[in-house]
Amino acid sequence: MFGTVIHAPGDIRLEERPDAALTAPTDAVVRLAATCICGSDLWPYRGIESVDEPRPMGHEYAGVVEQVGADVRDIKVGDFVVGSFATSDNTCEICRAGYQSHCVHREFMGTAQAELTRVPHADGTLVATPGQPDPDLVPHLLAASDVLGTGWYAADAAQAGPGRTVAVVGDGAVGLLGILSAKQMGAERIIAMSRHADRQKLAIEFGASDIVTERGEEGVARVKELTGGLGAHSVIEAVGTQESMMQAIRSTRAGGHVGYVGVAHGVSLPGEELFFSGTHLHGGPAPVRKYLPHLIDLIWRREIEPGKVFDLTLPLAEVAEGYKAMDERRAVKVLLQP
Amino acid sequence: MFGTVIHAPGDIRLEERPDAALTAPTDAVVRLAATCICGSDLWPYRGIESVDEPRPMGHEYAGVVEQVGADVRDIKVGDFVVGSFATSDNTCEICRAGYQSHCVHREFMGTAQAELTRVPHADGTLVATPGQPDPDLVPHLLAASDVLGTGWYAADAAQAGPGRTVAVVGDGAVGLLGILSAKQMGAERIIAMSRHADRQKLAIEFGASDIVTERGEEGVARVKELTGGLGAHSVIEAVGTQESMMQAIRSTRAGGHVGYVGVAHGVSLPGEELFFSGTHLHGGPAPVRKYLPHLIDLIWRREIEPGKVFDLTLPLAEVAEGYKAMDERRAVKVLLQP
Repeated sequence: MFGTVIHAPGDIRLEERPDAALTAPTDAVVRLAATCICGSDLWPYRGIESVDEPRPMGHEYAGVVEQVGADVRDIKVGDFVVGSFATSDNTCEICRAGYQSHCVHREFMGTAQAELTRVPHADGTLVATPGQPDPDLVPHLLAASDVLGTGWYAADAAQAGPGRTVAVVGDGAVGLLGILSAKQMGAERIIAMSRHADRQKLAIEFGASDIVTERGEEGVARVKELTGGLGAHSVIEAVGTQESMMQAIRSTRAGGHVGYVGVAHGVSLPGEELFFSGTHLHGGPAPVRKYLPHLIDLIWRREIEPGKVFDLTLPLAEVAEGYKAMDERRAVKVLLQP
Repeated sequence: MFGTVIHAPGDIRLEERPDAALTAPTDAVVRLAATCICGSDLWPYRGIESVDEPRPMGHEYAGVVEQVGADVRDIKVGDFVVGSFATSDNTCEICRAGYQSHCVHREFMGTAQAELTRVPHADGTLVATPGQPDPDLVPHLLAASDVLGTGWYAADAAQAGPGRTVAVVGDGAVGLLGILSAKQMGAERIIAMSRHADRQKLAIEFGASDIVTERGEEGVARVKELTGGLGAHSVIEAVGTQESMMQAIRSTRAGGHVGYVGVAHGVSLPGEELFFSGTHLHGGPAPVRKYLPHLIDLIWRREIEPGKVFDLTLPLAEVAEGYKAMDERRAVKVLLQP
């Protein structure tokens, strides 16, 4: 099969690799209908995360089950499935508490920018759609695998809901889908922090009521202006830098909630400021598996169109160009067709 | 009147000062029945917080109202009252959300180790007891002013409750009262982290089911051993140092809650570790005013005895010895009688 391998920062190649195969009786092998490039894939691509040796890439996936191991009960060959970027048994104490992304058997997926991918703990990781999807639904279903699930978790962790003002730091795909999620949760007002016209447009389409173009301290001041000087009730952080984390915390009122899902890189939070902020801080890798049944249902009933964050579709063979387009901000998010 | 003044680290004096007086129509003046020394008072005493010029001390107080301003409606002269260390109007949006310690009109009390103290926003800060208390209730009521209210908030922020295992980092008065609070909230199991026999004894009396004497990484490992390898559901942090914060975060299971109330000094939280911990972090100055009616009720009905944390009672004239005793860990907490 063909699969994506990173050799060094900036060096992405599609290569012939051994076919994905079952290695445990709880595994499944999925033939990808679609896969995509994540904002977090840019960390090694940009050399911010080290690349010590060539390794496969990709953790977002939707497709048809081709093989299942002997212990797989719920997932069947031929099912169209969506899975989380983090595998889970969905039965341990942590999973049952709704934190499948911290399952005691968790593995992070990392081979999905390919034709086939192996999924450990298939029953606990994958969710089958009600039938074979219409082709136009595939991008939306793929989005549920990570970027929608992560935006949803951020909104949930930030306790977006009726009567609450939500501010969103980061206008990448996760931030945009955080807006969609907050809207679905009934948030009263959603402030998108964005300075890119195309992303602002999608933000408004997804439910943003206000756009703030300022960043850093000026952005914080603008959010405070819009919220009676107090700050937002809920702030979604979807970047993962020192600046974005501080912008999120400072934009939140005392007693408010920060939901942070940008993978932290070089972030160090000052304890005293955090203490006196009186905010709630929650985030990390999203328990996408928890939300998948609900998200798939919303997509299946055509109530949400999260796949709109894909603004460039390429054949898998052009994966290197996909990374380049995202790195250069020519694309918000790239869908790859194997 | 006589009041306590810090002149420099280690230099505490009781001095004759002008009588506390009304300065705004929403003020009250309270004659202290009792006041005490807070663990946080040791920060300047030890020179960890700078002391640029002499300043009065004390923010925990219970006593009888001697004067009220023209706009004070609910609190009457002659009432026995307990107030929070942070003043609040109790009407602003932040107060109504239960975060009175971040009230838009907040001031931190700081003159209460004295015979008289002025309390701003008396109606929003003070709570009157149902009548004049029996003398043996006074230490318990005084504890509600900060140390119990803060322990209660920590347990609340950590979501202590039925079915939850709570670990408590810090065996000072706040940590001990965090144990009492978690017990009152119905926690299933309470792990006290303490290496002092007298504090362990009080911890058990307040409801601790397990004692862990190890600290740092060994303490974390021990909490994990006691919780099936997962960590506690709820962890109370009641110290405020880098070590205690990291011990608290690492003792918490993914999806669990850290309630941190130790005033952070020199703490810097590593973003990546926090991200992958999947914990909830909430804390800061406790909204004691929110809890006071309930806490006073529990004390009045003699259901809790938080004043047991006072293991040394001195006349106010010996305040300097009180600081010394706490600094040298000869006392957990010192009650002062004006």
